[in-house]
Amino acid sequence: MDGLVERVLAGDIRALSRALSVVEDRREGCRAVLKALYRHSGRARVIGITGPPGAGKSTLANGLIGRFRAAGSRVAVVAVDPSSAFSGGAILGDRIRMQDRALDEGVFIRSMATRGHMGGLAAATDDAVTVLDGAGYDVVLVETVGVGQDEVDIVREADTVLVVLVPGLGDDIQAIKAGIMEIADVFVINKADREGAGRLERELHSMLALAGEAPAWTPRVVKTVASRGEGLDAVAAALSDHSDHLAASGALDARRHQKHRQRLWNLLEEGFTERLRRRRLDGHAEGALLERLVRREADPYTTAEEILASVLREEAP
Amino acid sequence: MDGLVERVLAGDIRALSRALSVVEDRREGCRAVLKALYRHSGRARVIGITGPPGAGKSTLANGLIGRFRAAGSRVAVVAVDPSSAFSGGAILGDRIRMQDRALDEGVFIRSMATRGHMGGLAAATDDAVTVLDGAGYDVVLVETVGVGQDEVDIVREADTVLVVLVPGLGDDIQAIKAGIMEIADVFVINKADREGAGRLERELHSMLALAGEAPAWTPRVVKTVASRGEGLDAVAAALSDHSDHLAASGALDARRHQKHRQRLWNLLEEGFTERLRRRRLDGHAEGALLERLVRREADPYTTAEEILASVLREEAP
Repeated sequence: MDGLVERVLAGDIRALSRALSVVEDRREGCRAVLKALYRHSGRARVIGITGPPGAGKSTLANGLIGRFRAAGSRVAVVAVDPSSAFSGGAILGDRIRMQDRALDEGVFIRSMATRGHMGGLAAATDDAVTVLDGAGYDVVLVETVGVGQDEVDIVREADTVLVVLVPGLGDDIQAIKAGIMEIADVFVINKADREGAGRLERELHSMLALAGEAPAWTPRVVKTVASRGEGLDAVAAALSDHSDHLAASGALDARRHQKHRQRLWNLLEEGFTERLRRRRLDGHAEGALLERLVRREADPYTTAEEILASVLREEAP
Repeated sequence: MDGLVERVLAGDIRALSRALSVVEDRREGCRAVLKALYRHSGRARVIGITGPPGAGKSTLANGLIGRFRAAGSRVAVVAVDPSSAFSGGAILGDRIRMQDRALDEGVFIRSMATRGHMGGLAAATDDAVTVLDGAGYDVVLVETVGVGQDEVDIVREADTVLVVLVPGLGDDIQAIKAGIMEIADVFVINKADREGAGRLERELHSMLALAGEAPAWTPRVVKTVASRGEGLDAVAAALSDHSDHLAASGALDARRHQKHRQRLWNLLEEGFTERLRRRRLDGHAEGALLERLVRREADPYTTAEEILASVLREEAP
């Protein structure tokens, strides 16, 4: 691990990739890397992008990267596909990479694998963002595909959340509404040259009008045709407005407090679960234990209390 | 608490209601009640019923209750509506109660409130089922409305899962498919006199045919018009077949092992979280802690390790 963090801080790309792998796979030294880079983090603008498959998120992200680069910002992308294990589709990061960013040293793209993340994909994404933020990137884009709880948990950790929709979703908007709509700061209606763009825009506005008490920030709705670059300036302006609002209103601090609370709880649960797994519920012991429960020779409440007491006793420092 | 469990075991309905409230609100004595009744549980057939709103679940449940009663079984219903806080609609249990079960002493109906369940609604439902099972009901129906992750978590704990659909769902079947379809043992197409019942049936069968390797149990598909009592015999037969299959194949044991493993983990996490909340993250201390993290004066990884160590030390028996 010697010198890895120093090389990351010096801008060494291979060291950065290695640090991300160490963190993502929870390899030895993971905590040391995170602790060291955490001290340098907290400066990046973290932008989450999500929406249903086929909405054109990667094309839009690519366009936004161009805008940030033109303004002199260094950009990192974390592309997370919670469903990639099932869909077998192209990984998000690859799609951006295939576009015209491969040779630009001011852009770093990382795809997150979905398997085996202790503590969940949201926690793993958080750690990757900490590394990239600590490494000095000005903007970190967190991109996910889909509209389920996993995606909500991942992008809600961003400072600004951009939700990309397309006309023709039909009744699906009802299904999407539940979780993702509540976390959006900016809505993009992409492929806005398609039929139904106007109706979708009206639906979004009437949904937002129903939002109860006057919110401090009313989510923007922007129409784009990302493949032709149309509307990207308006998206960049909406992101910038939200950024200003966060800073001016104190909402950024509130969000970051919330984010740290969540992360702390995740880490505590992860730490406890690790200790638990090491001790008691492995292999044979677990089978025998469950058999006793099924036979009603023991009850789960007493058993849980006993296991907990023994973990507390044996792990006490 | 004195004598409460004895009165529950003697068939005292008011004592049963009180025991359920004690457990649901996690009042003092909750663990003692659960431990005592757990010893008497494990005999009931637990049947989960779920499906989208408007599918006619309550009418179907009511019809099934009639069948079970006619066979001499005592039936308890746990009606859980994870979304009732938002929808404000009629609570499931009330709908069944309004039908013709109010005066039958062999039927007990309990609606679960959704607020404030430490450890989640699924764990609270589990505990309620343990109480009713321990109280001697032959059949416990767990009914939920909706097709989200909450509902999946709740009904998957049942021995047999019945999913109720209606024709005319359109593309929604795509959305439903993800979680709920995988846990169904019996599909009911209710309101089967409506247009599209045949198409829905074919869609289900082709979905089931894609299920990969030959499963030990192929979910049944049954058409009903529950409001006229049509098809209820076929549903009862499918439930009975599945029950036989569970017993004969050893799958019942496997399910119950899995269920106990899940419950044990839930209880361990609940116990640990309780200790954590008591100690450290309350009120002022938490605010100061988060402020230090936001200012990068501390990092969350070290902070989590310190909190965990202090909880382990202070709570060690």
